[in-house]
Amino acid sequence: MSKATTADHHDLAADDALRMSIRRAVLDVRARTPLAQSFTNFVTINLVANAQLAAGGTAAMSYLPDDVIDIAAMCGATYINVGTLLPFYKDALGEITASLHEAGHRWVLDPVAAGLGATRTAILKAMRDTPPSLVRANASEVIALDALWGLSDGSDVTDGPAGVESTDDVDTALGAAKRVAKHLRAGDPDGLGAVAVSGETDLVTDGERVFRLPGGDMMMTKITGAGCALGGVAATYLCVAEPLVAALAASLLFDRAGERAAAESHGPGSFQTEFLDALWAIDADTVSTSTILEANR
Amino acid sequence: MSKATTADHHDLAADDALRMSIRRAVLDVRARTPLAQSFTNFVTINLVANAQLAAGGTAAMSYLPDDVIDIAAMCGATYINVGTLLPFYKDALGEITASLHEAGHRWVLDPVAAGLGATRTAILKAMRDTPPSLVRANASEVIALDALWGLSDGSDVTDGPAGVESTDDVDTALGAAKRVAKHLRAGDPDGLGAVAVSGETDLVTDGERVFRLPGGDMMMTKITGAGCALGGVAATYLCVAEPLVAALAASLLFDRAGERAAAESHGPGSFQTEFLDALWAIDADTVSTSTILEANR
Amino acid sequence: MSKATTADHHDLAADDALRMSIRRAVLDVRARTPLAQSFTNFVTINLVANAQLAAGGTAAMSYLPDDVIDIAAMCGATYINVGTLLPFYKDALGEITASLHEAGHRWVLDPVAAGLGATRTAILKAMRDTPPSLVRANASEVIALDALWGLSDGSDVTDGPAGVESTDDVDTALGAAKRVAKHLRAGDPDGLGAVAVSGETDLVTDGERVFRLPGGDMMMTKITGAGCALGGVAATYLCVAEPLVAALAASLLFDRAGERAAAESHGPGSFQTEFLDALWAIDADTVSTSTILEANR
Repeated sequence: MSKATTADHHDLAADDALRMSIRRAVLDVRARTPLAQSFTNFVTINLVANAQLAAGGTAAMSYLPDDVIDIAAMCGATYINVGTLLPFYKDALGEITASLHEAGHRWVLDPVAAGLGATRTAILKAMRDTPPSLVRANASEVIALDALWGLSDGSDVTDGPAGVESTDDVDTALGAAKRVAKHLRAGDPDGLGAVAVSGETDLVTDGERVFRLPGGDMMMTKITGAGCALGGVAATYLCVAEPLVAALAASLLFDRAGERAAAESHGPGSFQTEFLDALWAIDADTVSTSTILEANR
Repeated sequence: MSKATTADHHDLAADDALRMSIRRAVLDVRARTPLAQSFTNFVTINLVANAQLAAGGTAAMSYLPDDVIDIAAMCGATYINVGTLLPFYKDALGEITASLHEAGHRWVLDPVAAGLGATRTAILKAMRDTPPSLVRANASEVIALDALWGLSDGSDVTDGPAGVESTDDVDTALGAAKRVAKHLRAGDPDGLGAVAVSGETDLVTDGERVFRLPGGDMMMTKITGAGCALGGVAATYLCVAEPLVAALAASLLFDRAGERAAAESHGPGSFQTEFLDALWAIDADTVSTSTILEANR
Repeated sequence: MSKATTADHHDLAADDALRMSIRRAVLDVRARTPLAQSFTNFVTINLVANAQLAAGGTAAMSYLPDDVIDIAAMCGATYINVGTLLPFYKDALGEITASLHEAGHRWVLDPVAAGLGATRTAILKAMRDTPPSLVRANASEVIALDALWGLSDGSDVTDGPAGVESTDDVDTALGAAKRVAKHLRAGDPDGLGAVAVSGETDLVTDGERVFRLPGGDMMMTKITGAGCALGGVAATYLCVAEPLVAALAASLLFDRAGERAAAESHGPGSFQTEFLDALWAIDADTVSTSTILEANR
């Protein structure tokens, strides 16, 4: 954590209500096997589904508005990832997010490569007024989304997008993440929303409270799709918990699974195998007793 | 097997002709490495291909009518799965199935999420008159297909589709499966056809004879695509055997592989790895000497 | 090596400049983690990305011209694979390759199933005048591309395409490979270009020099996508090296990784896991000291 010191942060108390909610979310998913659907990229679609299953949920993947809207009526949350665009997405995604928003259906946005490509820019801009409940992204993407949605005051500095890999530390996205989270909450009927910024240390915020989650393993960046899978599992938790809890539970589960997988593997092939096994094996107590550093206010 | 008792069923005799045909199909695929092509969903396309290779065949995946029709002329069977629809499929799939039907080319239909979405409903309805040789599905999907094709007499009770997971026991689909199988046979130049209903106990029928295949492992539902891979491998066997034999051989191979993989793994990641290894390793005798419970008539 | 004898070939000397360049390419990729983007098929897209990461690079996958062209401006090379065509590719790929060619951006072509399907034929023909820097293919595909581009003198004999599996030994494609390589070089501003023909023994040529790379393992044909992944990793090396060196480095890395994975695995599932681990683990010296048989002239 480059900029997080003990003077700035405190670990949440063992009996903090947030820890209890995280524990409950992990247990509820395992007990109820909720269905979260995904509209996601073709690179990591298989890993997203397998991660959702390993965390205890079930998965359905769709691309047509009629499919997505029909399934939304019977599932707890939807994951939308704009990684590998096809021409028809420009109309389809607008129709889908408008329908989800009108129905009060919760969804997670993964704005992969935000800032790149005219089609993606148009799609992401249009989502401003039918916003998700949760944004899961790397630092560069959060900063780009903040700018695309016109929320930025221009004070953040970014090196800009670099394909799908972030070039920015999560702390550079702190202001952007808080503004995006406040925008999500303003658009939510219950005033709920959260942003999860993935990086060496993950950052999660609801626009007011800011949490930093140390841990994970650099091997998570040596397989494709750990971030997408995190977004998908956040949608699984969103079926049973509010956005901030879902973002924290998914991020903590992934950090603990990454550490366990790194210890059991000897390269990216065995890391992915062990990572799915760890998502399956890690229990609610391990997740909910993780270090959760809250920024002092 | 909730409704199967020993009074109702008998295990096929060791020297039953069907067992010999199953054994021959497994051996022939390993000897001839037949090409089965697939038009399948984006979630599990990689697993379908790898399962076909592990079973001994070769694989080719296509989406354009000109590709599918060209490859059909040089391959033994085709697998079509309607899981992740794109807009152009509505026209493409009709063109493809009409061409396959006219050419007398055998194909397997996997009606994923049958009953969900106007586009999928239109696509599946249109296949009624250019039917496949084999349908591989879960109980809910078989019941939905039976209804879409207007074969149902309304006596079956279903909880309806629940995304891509079945909500129905295979036995609730017995009547539907028999009607669909009879419809396939009526549309086949040789009067052949079969339906494989996947569940805790698999059910396979040609419309007259009904077989139940106990076994497998619940971990097969904790990875995405075991059902799709089964449909793909059924197409591989369909290159060398008639539909009923192909359905039985593929289902039995999958049940034995699922059991072996469960014994060797400790989570869904290692289960998938071991499952592919088991598809590769399990021999024709293990498949053909499996328990095959035939309903007494 | 069916037709390669010691009288016809010599192993490159230990201090050959080409070996030094191969070693440098492997080290540079690990040091710089260059971004190579891909426009590739849906079957093996995940393996391509994971192989590029395992070799030390980073990956981005796109399908829209605006995405591909934007990312090309910030990445070292692009991999284009025509395996699973969608209708819009016919226009999109022409626009993309024209843009890449005009910008002098290096790219790898994987002409999967060349010769099959009217759409693929039209797409590949159009690439003749905006050619790639590197072609990675099996023997049948190189022969088909040679014919599609009108380079053939008709002297090569082929059994024709057989889906996506080659029916021809690499040596049958020798003439075609040399002609295609010369065509690539004629279209390159620096006069560089190479063709890598994958088979039991790999063949790599720049149109003048011809190299044969013995080794690898037949299990590479029992998982889907080893060839695609090789094309993707060739693009990763193309970010830091010229086409001939990139083709040799990628082919040698894959042969050594295939051998190591075969020794560590017991079926196609564990082979794929071990293969990715081996791509990650094998060092530059192992790659650059491999047997490289050059045809005597």
